[in-house]
Amino acid sequence: MPHPRPSDPLGEIYAEWSVEFEANPQMSLQLMRWVFEDWQRATAEPEGVTYATTTIGGVPGILVTPLDADPSQVMVVMHGGGFALGSSASHRKLAGHLTKACGTHAFVLDFRLAPEFPFPAQIEDGLAVYQALLDKGIKADDVCFVGDSAGGNLAVAMTLTLRRDGRPLPGRVLTMSPWLNMENSGATIETNNDTDFLITREGLAGNIGRYLSGGADPTDPYVNPLYATYEGFPRLYVCAADTESLFEDSERLVALAENAGVDVTFSIGKGMQHVFPFQAGRLARADEEIASMAAWYRS
Amino acid sequence: MPHPRPSDPLGEIYAEWSVEFEANPQMSLQLMRWVFEDWQRATAEPEGVTYATTTIGGVPGILVTPLDADPSQVMVVMHGGGFALGSSASHRKLAGHLTKACGTHAFVLDFRLAPEFPFPAQIEDGLAVYQALLDKGIKADDVCFVGDSAGGNLAVAMTLTLRRDGRPLPGRVLTMSPWLNMENSGATIETNNDTDFLITREGLAGNIGRYLSGGADPTDPYVNPLYATYEGFPRLYVCAADTESLFEDSERLVALAENAGVDVTFSIGKGMQHVFPFQAGRLARADEEIASMAAWYRS
Repeated sequence: MPHPRPSDPLGEIYAEWSVEFEANPQMSLQLMRWVFEDWQRATAEPEGVTYATTTIGGVPGILVTPLDADPSQVMVVMHGGGFALGSSASHRKLAGHLTKACGTHAFVLDFRLAPEFPFPAQIEDGLAVYQALLDKGIKADDVCFVGDSAGGNLAVAMTLTLRRDGRPLPGRVLTMSPWLNMENSGATIETNNDTDFLITREGLAGNIGRYLSGGADPTDPYVNPLYATYEGFPRLYVCAADTESLFEDSERLVALAENAGVDVTFSIGKGMQHVFPFQAGRLARADEEIASMAAWYRS
Repeated sequence: MPHPRPSDPLGEIYAEWSVEFEANPQMSLQLMRWVFEDWQRATAEPEGVTYATTTIGGVPGILVTPLDADPSQVMVVMHGGGFALGSSASHRKLAGHLTKACGTHAFVLDFRLAPEFPFPAQIEDGLAVYQALLDKGIKADDVCFVGDSAGGNLAVAMTLTLRRDGRPLPGRVLTMSPWLNMENSGATIETNNDTDFLITREGLAGNIGRYLSGGADPTDPYVNPLYATYEGFPRLYVCAADTESLFEDSERLVALAENAGVDVTFSIGKGMQHVFPFQAGRLARADEEIASMAAWYRS
């Protein structure tokens, strides 16, 4: 069945990618990585934000600093891209909009990518950044883990890992269109197939294979947070589009967290695409979502 | 003959691109555009610089503003990429380093790309930005046209067009590894083939075909500035690598301009790659070149 025409910038970008993916079914991972860098195109430059290429805790990335940022407030941003794609460059501007609205700064880290580095290398890198921030005197409560898509999985799994190890938890966790179901069994992958211009079950299977290439179990709660319990989890913000293939992942995460008594905010982008806040500065609904995240962050 | 191993970040990037180009000789223009966006990877984020996605003279692009920039000094940056590839995003950080060193701001424009828009659409867009700046009260003498590779051609051709039309010329023109020879007859394409990790005569032929798809003549001086005269041309800075395939284009441009009495500065990056200043913040020789451009700009 043909897709309807995209109605927003991100849908147009995903549709352009999909043309190339379908024309090149054996596309190399290197080319796929360059395609996903194009995510940056969805986002307008946030004004009044500066950047530095640096390392924190030995992990490379981009430090994002709005001109009026509170230096004590830090977001650790885990980028999306199926654990294998994406970078600090693809997510720099999204982090800029979010930090500017929230009055924080952010480190968008270039964690090691799968399959060269399978689970749990990404979680280890995120927690190395977190520990380095605490060692510098940042309070755990002033750290927010942020992640979109596979990065949303990592932000949650990092928090679950800290809880397991009895270490201080971040004050907040913010996820956008988190991808959690490593069994690749979500119902909305089928039911939203016509309205999601990026995600396919085959594409997800490829990234699951890369992430779990070290032999991890797709039902391990640190791999698949839909198998986790959420008692004691920090304040949680989840946004997702009701029309995206991974919507069920967000619905299930929100239900699990609510049932465990977690303070959860769930924001649904009606008719939007996967990680629709990427369109900050270009689409009113994305700007509204950034404002909603900021209201949650500051409350 | 196998290439020697790259010894700098840009050489490594070009070598990675070349693997994919050779493996995919029929690569779509869309995929090639995404590959060339990877140019941004060569450059570290310049600190203390802010950005805005905007239009000037109806042309979209990124306005680059160092925190201490002189608002009266503007660089009009024509990005490289064979007139068909590259963007404001690929060149944002390079412009950031250059403006920060020079104390100016810059507009990196997304001129219309070939072959959808052949010569002279790119020149028209650059001059639309220039005229809009003059209309805002910027003095022609305080404008610097900047271009790398094909953008260097455009920066020169824009200036020649203004001279032809009796319009005010910019105060300065700065080119990095300009690509001028649209007859594809440069000797260094062969003699430097082993040390240039990006440029091939076949690749150049493809971009010439795209740029001239409207029927322009490859010996038209506004297409091929090696056929132009340089009397009355502004102060000119040219940098290029002695080991790059397009080195002869720079040598010939410098000779033409010097013979016409133009104030020319020629800086040679020994052993470097095409547009080696892209490595600003990552390679000492690139930082030296940025400093050299700034000394020229401020003198």
